[in-house]
Amino acid sequence: MKHIESHLFVIIGATGDLTSRKLLPSLYAMIADQGLGDRCRILGVATSELTDEAFRESTKDALRAAGHDDEDFEAWSDRAVHYQCIRPGYEALRERIEALEEEYGMRGNRVFYLALPPRVFPTAIEGLGEAGLAKSSGWTRLVVEKPFGRDLESARELNELVHRYFDESQVYRIDHYLGKETVQNLLVLRFANSLFESSWNRDRVKSVQISVAEELGVEHRAGYYEHAGALRDMVQSHLTQVMTLVAMEPPASLEADSIRNEKVKVLQSIQRIDPEQVVVGRYGPGTSNGSPVGGYLEEEGVAADSTTGTFVAMRVDIDNWRWQGVPFYLRTGKRLPRRLTQIAIEFYEPPVCLFDREGLCQVHSNTLVITLQPHEGFELLFDVKAPEERFRLITLPLDFFYEEAFGPLPAAYTTLIKDLLSGDQTLFVRADEVEESWRLFTPLLARSGEPDPYPAGSWGPEASERLPARDGNAWVVR
Amino acid sequence: MKHIESHLFVIIGATGDLTSRKLLPSLYAMIADQGLGDRCRILGVATSELTDEAFRESTKDALRAAGHDDEDFEAWSDRAVHYQCIRPGYEALRERIEALEEEYGMRGNRVFYLALPPRVFPTAIEGLGEAGLAKSSGWTRLVVEKPFGRDLESARELNELVHRYFDESQVYRIDHYLGKETVQNLLVLRFANSLFESSWNRDRVKSVQISVAEELGVEHRAGYYEHAGALRDMVQSHLTQVMTLVAMEPPASLEADSIRNEKVKVLQSIQRIDPEQVVVGRYGPGTSNGSPVGGYLEEEGVAADSTTGTFVAMRVDIDNWRWQGVPFYLRTGKRLPRRLTQIAIEFYEPPVCLFDREGLCQVHSNTLVITLQPHEGFELLFDVKAPEERFRLITLPLDFFYEEAFGPLPAAYTTLIKDLLSGDQTLFVRADEVEESWRLFTPLLARSGEPDPYPAGSWGPEASERLPARDGNAWVVR
Repeated sequence: MKHIESHLFVIIGATGDLTSRKLLPSLYAMIADQGLGDRCRILGVATSELTDEAFRESTKDALRAAGHDDEDFEAWSDRAVHYQCIRPGYEALRERIEALEEEYGMRGNRVFYLALPPRVFPTAIEGLGEAGLAKSSGWTRLVVEKPFGRDLESARELNELVHRYFDESQVYRIDHYLGKETVQNLLVLRFANSLFESSWNRDRVKSVQISVAEELGVEHRAGYYEHAGALRDMVQSHLTQVMTLVAMEPPASLEADSIRNEKVKVLQSIQRIDPEQVVVGRYGPGTSNGSPVGGYLEEEGVAADSTTGTFVAMRVDIDNWRWQGVPFYLRTGKRLPRRLTQIAIEFYEPPVCLFDREGLCQVHSNTLVITLQPHEGFELLFDVKAPEERFRLITLPLDFFYEEAFGPLPAAYTTLIKDLLSGDQTLFVRADEVEESWRLFTPLLARSGEPDPYPAGSWGPEASERLPARDGNAWVVR
Repeated sequence: MKHIESHLFVIIGATGDLTSRKLLPSLYAMIADQGLGDRCRILGVATSELTDEAFRESTKDALRAAGHDDEDFEAWSDRAVHYQCIRPGYEALRERIEALEEEYGMRGNRVFYLALPPRVFPTAIEGLGEAGLAKSSGWTRLVVEKPFGRDLESARELNELVHRYFDESQVYRIDHYLGKETVQNLLVLRFANSLFESSWNRDRVKSVQISVAEELGVEHRAGYYEHAGALRDMVQSHLTQVMTLVAMEPPASLEADSIRNEKVKVLQSIQRIDPEQVVVGRYGPGTSNGSPVGGYLEEEGVAADSTTGTFVAMRVDIDNWRWQGVPFYLRTGKRLPRRLTQIAIEFYEPPVCLFDREGLCQVHSNTLVITLQPHEGFELLFDVKAPEERFRLITLPLDFFYEEAFGPLPAAYTTLIKDLLSGDQTLFVRADEVEESWRLFTPLLARSGEPDPYPAGSWGPEASERLPARDGNAWVVR
């Protein structure tokens, strides 16, 4: 475990939902687990006029609500948590920071975590930069939540603004999928296991599928979602990150930039995404978890003439030596039958069918199914002989699940915050990755017209079944 | 399921241990399971003077002792079981068979199952042949238990004698290992699963290991074992059969002779076994299951100057395109730490070690472990990342066990008897397989001198550890 130095953790947007639901609980879990105690002091920043005491109380509420129940967090909150209103400006923030650092004898290591709606990212970045907060006598790290931009142009502008003040080595663009054990383990699965890696190419792999299914609908987030849609919300970030880890070449080393160099090369190898190979859908009325639910157009805050897609499926082609000709199918949607994040690596069938039954060939593709949600693990689907029958084949899994082997896993945010504080950028998204991703998806945003309808509780519009079917494939769901 | 025709099942050696412990229970299990009822009638043959009634009673005792508890077996025994003393000769046996067939309107389908000590095989085969019992108006099948011969010369003589009367298509040389689900499933594992088969060769496989470990000592079988030893008792039969199924090329079809052609080709590709690569051991005093036990020389019936080996390990090289240079390590022994039959296919490590820890490379070989005893199943050992640590690797299994998926498996004998009655020779050993196997092992029988000692309860003599160690390998035990 890398050493975590004493630092001030500045949360900008400290009164928001993300801060109370995710950030404070994960941060405190890490502090308690690592015994950081007074080495991590928090400064909440927001527009409300709050005292330190009031923010400490809301911090305690958040920790309690997240299930923390040790005695120490109250004492820790009273000691280590502070608050600064941003209304007096960023100069005042700098003075407060310097005062706290002097008070506690800290040497100037600082995190600025932007827990803000994307539209105010520029104001905050400029504010910090102009107040001289991009540099200090220690290290300064800037954390930006997704979505990073809303198309190629806005992402470039945001990167330029960030780089006006911050060096890329200071920037941590967070995508919480990268904090999941199974996602990190993709590197180990591939590069520590020769059986898989030796088959991980166009000679052996028939298709790669990445599915991120949500059971929930848009809930109370229509205000955000109407302007995002599934493509911005999920594909450009989570699915793209997972795809690059699945497809990348072996890195020269495990240094952050070695890995990120290989990830960005995957994106650079995709010439374009054929709009004919993209399906956009929108859920209509149907069922969720057995109960009837309304369609997207009936959700609160959704415009009557909305054309926002709540489902996207597409075929992506990576035109490099390893993957040329192998379809990568991506899909994601809301109001699908269940919450599921899965990668399926489908290998070719055997070249000859030895095992006939009533004139039907029985052999199937071996498929490696990697599940990220709800239960992190691996299943290798293979064919076995049914007992007492020669030769009837049955497809069954060789399987492994993380929690069976190791017990409960850390939250993805906890992992990422620990990396952030250790200065490890491996699991954070680099500027060029973001831009290459937007290069691919921005042309698809221009698409007009109604999304294809699908009933809530189904696996999306029919057209998404035809997407792999055109290539002789089918979606795999475990 | 193939149709089983009405037949007479003649057991020669009907009063012996094999008949009561294995043959009758397995045969009856099959009869009950398949609803054969009066389609299978049994004629016990032995040297004792017994009435039908007396043999029926001993049949019922055997079924009861084997745990059969349905009501029907007593009625079935009284109806379908008969006995003939062999003292009046094989002509009298023929007359009795014909009389029974006439009485029950059977059309002459006959099994002759030689449940005899190997030394009386020739007498029985000649007796049947000379009495004209090798042919009938239906089908006639001859079942021979292992060991088939005790060296190349005696195996050839026995085959010549068999073929003087019987066609090879009538001969079923039984090796009960071939009746195990996992052994049969080797064909499915390999030829219905492209992920494994595409790596099943010298480019990807570092070593193949086959271990058959017994916890028991020689028990009450010293009379037989003193003249057999581990090489004749286990290696020439079970281990060789498993090795050929692991190593064979894909057959042209699933016909019995297609598969047996490929198995024999494996043996033909082995030029010789280097005596320097063979370790013979004998257990000394030690422990078994936690209790002290004596050594082999102290067992009842063992000669004081015995040089019989109770353990053999060897490296075998298959000099064909698929396997050249890949060591096949075979080992078997009595009084090892536990009962275990396992095949390990060890794949090469990744070419580059990305995952260092304290200067030590952490990557391991992926190994496919196929267990035949005690729990039939598969484990694919692969490396995963330990949670919360980047990057500490842990080797864990993706696993599958037959009984978890399918419940209790049929006894190997039941499977083989069903095949025998269906006329399927796939899982029986062909004449040329037996002779090719003896060609390899006969030179090793000439070896003189004391076996290497090992304590009861250990994994054999130290020299057997050096066998794979010389090639940079080690025995894998799960």
